Order: sequence, then C-alpha cells, then structure tokens
Amino acid sequence: MATSEKPSGLPFPTIRRYPIYLRAISLKIARGELYVSSAALARELGIDPVVVRKDLAMAGEPGTPRKGYRAKELIEAINRALGWDNATYAALVGVGSLGHALLGYHGFEDQNLRIVVAFDVNPSVVGTVHHGVRVRAMDEMAKFIPRLKVMLGILTVPNDAAQSCADLLVAAGIRGIWNFTAIQLDVPKEVKVQHVDLAASLAVLSHSIAANA
Amino acid sequence: MATSEKPSGLPFPTIRRYPIYLRAISLKIARGELYVSSAALARELGIDPVVVRKDLAMAGEPGTPRKGYRAKELIEAINRALGWDNATYAALVGVGSLGHALLGYHGFEDQNLRIVVAFDVNPSVVGTVHHGVRVRAMDEMAKFIPRLKVMLGILTVPNDAAQSCADLLVAAGIRGIWNFTAIQLDVPKEVKVQHVDLAASLAVLSHSIAANA
Repeated sequence: MATSEKPSGLPFPTIRRYPIYLRAISLKIARGELYVSSAALARELGIDPVVVRKDLAMAGEPGTPRKGYRAKELIEAINRALGWDNATYAALVGVGSLGHALLGYHGFEDQNLRIVVAFDVNPSVVGTVHHGVRVRAMDEMAKFIPRLKVMLGILTVPNDAAQSCADLLVAAGIRGIWNFTAIQLDVPKEVKVQHVDLAASLAVLSHSIAANA
Repeated sequence: MATSEKPSGLPFPTIRRYPIYLRAISLKIARGELYVSSAALARELGIDPVVVRKDLAMAGEPGTPRKGYRAKELIEAINRALGWDNATYAALVGVGSLGHALLGYHGFEDQNLRIVVAFDVNPSVVGTVHHGVRVRAMDEMAKFIPRLKVMLGILTVPNDAAQSCADLLVAAGIRGIWNFTAIQLDVPKEVKVQHVDLAASLAVLSHSIAANA
C-alpha cells in the first residue's frame, strides 16, 4: 500500500495502529521521557520495526537524528493525521442496555469523541440525563444534530429499528455512523459506516469453543 | 463453502448471521407465528433467499413442506449449532470503564453468555459487586475459573496489561478470549480469540470523516 500526500491516503492498518502508538507514547511522557524512537516502540509493542517506522513517518512529523521523535510533537502529529485534533461530536441513538453502557464508557474521550446528545423513542426515557447526556425524542434529531454540530451517530437500537434510525441520522446531516446493530445499513456513499457487531463476534467465539470441546 | 456433518464445519458468515435469524424468529414467535419460512426471513432481513435457505438447512432441523420450519424447533436447532444450548460461563478481567459497561449490558444473555465472576488488580475494587457480579483479586483466577466452570474470558484491561492477563486466563484453563484491548494476543492455538478493538474501529471512522471534510 503506497503512502499519499493527503491525510485521506493513510492505509487502514496504519490508522488502526495509531491509537496503540498514542497510548504507548502517552505512557512514556507520563514517565518523563521526552523522545521516542520507532525502534523502542516496535520492541515494546511487538510490532515489526519497519512497520512502525513507516507508520510514524506517515504522520508527517520529522524525527531528530539518533534521538528519535519529540514525544509531544509526535502525539500531535498522529492526532492531526487521524482528524482528532478537533473534537468530534457524536449523538447516541437508542438508550437501551448497550447505549447506556456506551454513555458510561470514558475511553472515547482519549480519541476526542464527545457524545453530546442521545435520542430514544421511549417517552419514559426522553428527558432523562445519563452520565451527563440528555436524551431527546427522535423527532428532535433534525433540529439538534445541526445545532450541536454532531458529525457522528452511534447506533445502539434494536435491529428492526436500525435502518429507519440510520435514515433519520442521514437526513439530519450526519457524516458517519458507528453501527452496533447486526444490520448492514443502506446509506449514501458519502456517509461512512463502521460496523461493530458484538453478537456476531460472540457467536463466532462461542461456536469455536463449542466445536473445539 | 461446503456444509459439513460436524457442527465445527459451519462457515463463519453463517455463524455471524445466526444471531440475526434468532432475533427475527423470536419476534415472530412473540407475534404468535408458529411457522417460519426461509423466503419470509430473507425478505424481512434483506438477505439473499438462497443464502438464508442454505444457512437454515445447516442448522440440521428438517422443514415442513410448504409451511416452512416450526419456529421453536428452528431456534433450538440454531442454538445447538452455535453451542448456545448450554450456557457459557464467562469471567471479565479488568473492571474499568469498559469492563463496568459490559457488566451492565444485558444483550449477552440472549446468547446464553453469563458473566459469573470478574477480576481486577485494584484492591479498592476487589470485593465490590457490580450488576450482581463479584470482583475478585487476580491471584484468585487459578482457583475460581475451574471451580465456576468458566470457559471464556472477557479482556477489558489496559493494553499494557493485556498479554499478562491473557497468560493468567490461559494458565487457569480458559478456552476462549473475547479481547477488547488493542493488543494482538499471543496464546496457544487451542485457545480461541475474538478481537473487538473499539479504539481502532473509531479511529478508522473518524479518519474517514475527517478525510472527507
């Protein structure tokens, strides 16, 4: 896979490794280290040193000969490359068990993702606040998504509501959907979808365990 | 991909679709329907009818001509094929923000997964109970995993603790690991691993949105 001048040209495997580097470099900074070398990162993370060197080079930050990269500058460069230098505002749709769990998960903050609003069909949930996020009615989506500059929708509704909720998100101007349902969504091609199907992942795992018994 | 007599021969795409069928059939039963046809399921779920017919046939339940499958028998057959006819007991390792969220998520119960124990290094967390699950010290793993017949470990620890915790799970006799860390685990090949890297999934999504701006 060739590198490209545009940030959009980053290869997917590189993008997927960037969060791992970010956390490892942050730990080094916390320990008082000012510089980080691709060789040390590779050793620590068990990744091929050639891969790490290429990944870091693609972030566009020049390293210092012998010393490696300045740790803080490298973190900023990777965040820029990932589009995380600006916070991404997200809306969560479907405050059921999984939605509620995700509202309570703080790991996304490292990645500059802020869930600023939630939506649900259930009138007894609308108006409640969970982990600081207010739940609004579905028909308020068209108003609040542009007003709050929400770019990303997190879809945690039941499967049979997945496509209709995705349609509402798209109509409200969302740019990407993080899809936690089991449904393959049909959306315009300019809307990006990432699918995390926990039920399917667990199905594959329990089947392999059972088959292996 | 050919079907096989052994349950272990199920193709992965079939396994991944089974939870979707299970939920759709359960809905039909709840509406009072006694029979379900592959054609109706295919139409409803937007999946190719040929694919649905083959998937259902692989569960090993004979259909009734014209009427289709008896809904309840079909659910049981699919559960058997997935190894979900017996509950799988799981241990969660790492009661941080994500671990806590997963303890509070009830969606796994549909798949007959029961989290029966949790482990953490933090002495102030050990002994507490979250959503009915008691947190124990890491050095109790070797005792409790065999005693509670735990087959599956859910790994929600920080990345730098992932491999050492996986090693403890393997030593305690675990058969599969559901890995929510960003680390590629090194485990014996008889231990099955399913990787759900939320940070990487979010990285890919936010990068595509940023690149598309």
